[in-house]
Amino acid sequence: MELTALCWHRQRLDVLDQRALPHDTRWMPCHDATDVASAIRDMVVRGAPAIGIAAAYGVALAAQRLGAEASLERLAPALQQLAESRPTAVNLFWALERMGKVLAGLEGEALIARAVAEAEHIHAEDLALNHRLAEHGVSLLPQGSFIYTHCNTGTLATGGHGTALGVIRTAWQGGRIAGVYAGETRPWMQGSRLTSWELMQDGVPVTLVTDSMAAVLMQSGRIGAVIVGADRITANGDTANKIGTYGLAVLAHHHRIPFIVAAPVATIDPQLADGSAIPIEQRPADEVRQIHGVPVAPATVPVFNPAFDVTPAGLISAIVTERGVITRPDTAAVRAHLALPAPEFAGAHS
Amino acid sequence: MELTALCWHRQRLDVLDQRALPHDTRWMPCHDATDVASAIRDMVVRGAPAIGIAAAYGVALAAQRLGAEASLERLAPALQQLAESRPTAVNLFWALERMGKVLAGLEGEALIARAVAEAEHIHAEDLALNHRLAEHGVSLLPQGSFIYTHCNTGTLATGGHGTALGVIRTAWQGGRIAGVYAGETRPWMQGSRLTSWELMQDGVPVTLVTDSMAAVLMQSGRIGAVIVGADRITANGDTANKIGTYGLAVLAHHHRIPFIVAAPVATIDPQLADGSAIPIEQRPADEVRQIHGVPVAPATVPVFNPAFDVTPAGLISAIVTERGVITRPDTAAVRAHLALPAPEFAGAHS
Repeated sequence: MELTALCWHRQRLDVLDQRALPHDTRWMPCHDATDVASAIRDMVVRGAPAIGIAAAYGVALAAQRLGAEASLERLAPALQQLAESRPTAVNLFWALERMGKVLAGLEGEALIARAVAEAEHIHAEDLALNHRLAEHGVSLLPQGSFIYTHCNTGTLATGGHGTALGVIRTAWQGGRIAGVYAGETRPWMQGSRLTSWELMQDGVPVTLVTDSMAAVLMQSGRIGAVIVGADRITANGDTANKIGTYGLAVLAHHHRIPFIVAAPVATIDPQLADGSAIPIEQRPADEVRQIHGVPVAPATVPVFNPAFDVTPAGLISAIVTERGVITRPDTAAVRAHLALPAPEFAGAHS
Repeated sequence: MELTALCWHRQRLDVLDQRALPHDTRWMPCHDATDVASAIRDMVVRGAPAIGIAAAYGVALAAQRLGAEASLERLAPALQQLAESRPTAVNLFWALERMGKVLAGLEGEALIARAVAEAEHIHAEDLALNHRLAEHGVSLLPQGSFIYTHCNTGTLATGGHGTALGVIRTAWQGGRIAGVYAGETRPWMQGSRLTSWELMQDGVPVTLVTDSMAAVLMQSGRIGAVIVGADRITANGDTANKIGTYGLAVLAHHHRIPFIVAAPVATIDPQLADGSAIPIEQRPADEVRQIHGVPVAPATVPVFNPAFDVTPAGLISAIVTERGVITRPDTAAVRAHLALPAPEFAGAHS
């Protein structure tokens, strides 16, 4: 049984508290939408897909609470509360909208059954998608090599298995790779706190490094590929992802190491022509001035703290999705990929 | 008056406690060689040149304590104690050897006077050397640009002014540059703890970033040059420096930004043909697993933690020393540079 960040017990959602990782494995039991909204707001759960799934379960719990009274109208306050828990999370709105659509016109037990089924479906779909994506991605990793990854794109961020980390996991299970180097991913330390913990849980050999050590690892010839996730991919293949990704792409290019992006098709935004259209969010200065609340710099030093960066498609060897692989991404290749049929997942219903 | 890490009061050496920076400006008064050895051993003072200077003052203090009894023989225990304070510090041994040489055959007041004068001279020489180096380096920084630097190569690490940071300081004082971006320099955070603090003390505009943000700064066109120090430079110009330096050199190369190394001629080791001969020290895993003693990763995760990396000469635009500038360093250019006459410094005596 693989690690999971969300454990659904039909009347209760247990959420692994990622704030306490890696030192404490603590579960937060959620009995209603208010509990789930708190878990999302307080970062007990993080990662766009995981947040969307948790919200869907939150709607199911709210419906169960209403019982015979359940209707989409009566669910409105719960939907509202969940929507407000993380105002910029696209997957959150997507999941709530999807729940609202399938529940429209239903009432009572029929609505409850549908809400539970749809939440479970959203979860299962994400998990199946990640496994499919991983199968497509494995062949991109050189046999017997060490893989470098950044941030956390694993079970903790998704419905399970993960995107970039899902590829790594599947590759390890199939005996394809020798191990993983995880960059710590300042300022939030998702690499040290989450990725290294996740991989240790699953017995995948992982070595932790500071972000500044990626270059010397590549120089040593030890790294067979770099694989990362994506926050948004534009029509031409430019990829926004966690700050530090662009630097890794340049370093991989210099050392002639494949640089791979792993993300669901839903991450591709064909409305944006290229990366210059992606706004770069600036995060609070104290994320850099402090680590876990401990000051590491002058309290008033000015800070530049972009949340992510944009890697030009020209530096990306391949983008892998649940539909397959886009080799040397550009506008034509991305368009052709989007025209492929979406896979049907076992266990999915209409 | 510029900031200083070592304040000599003729009967006492005050050492700025760098462990408490940037939150506390605390001075440790040293009255004898034992105090100085403690300050070096406990990392109250760091940076190879600064350690060498402190040790020289330690010898002077020991001589003062001996008074009329002072002789090189009687100084032996103090010299021994100082030599053992940091077993791998080359500048420390160099400074103690130099003190021993000039004090040989002297006794009492004559020895004390010579010890004080020589320690002051070693200090003044390093400071003068850094100013000379800085003057040579300024012209390498594009007018009106922002400069990126790594680790701490400033007053805190030297007899004053600094090497790479000395170039930056002189350039700022002359109105040549717009400001500085300091990389935090994981795992030890010399950039956030020391460099940003030092520059703020001197009113140089500094912005702190995580090491993973250097790439996006270069991509934005904001950076006019990268300047770093050196731990060792080989005969062909390959440069060992704080981990993270090599990655910055690759990034600068990709973005066609000048990458400059600033270091005294003494850093050049013509005995080593190239960087492959430099051993890479591996540091303890907990430096990466923890920050200021706070755990940020699983307690048992394997860690790769090299203390420095080697940048091939081909990625270095220029090496600047107190003798001038080596443009596009290679074996011939380095050899020609070493043949230049050493500058004579005002205030130096034979």
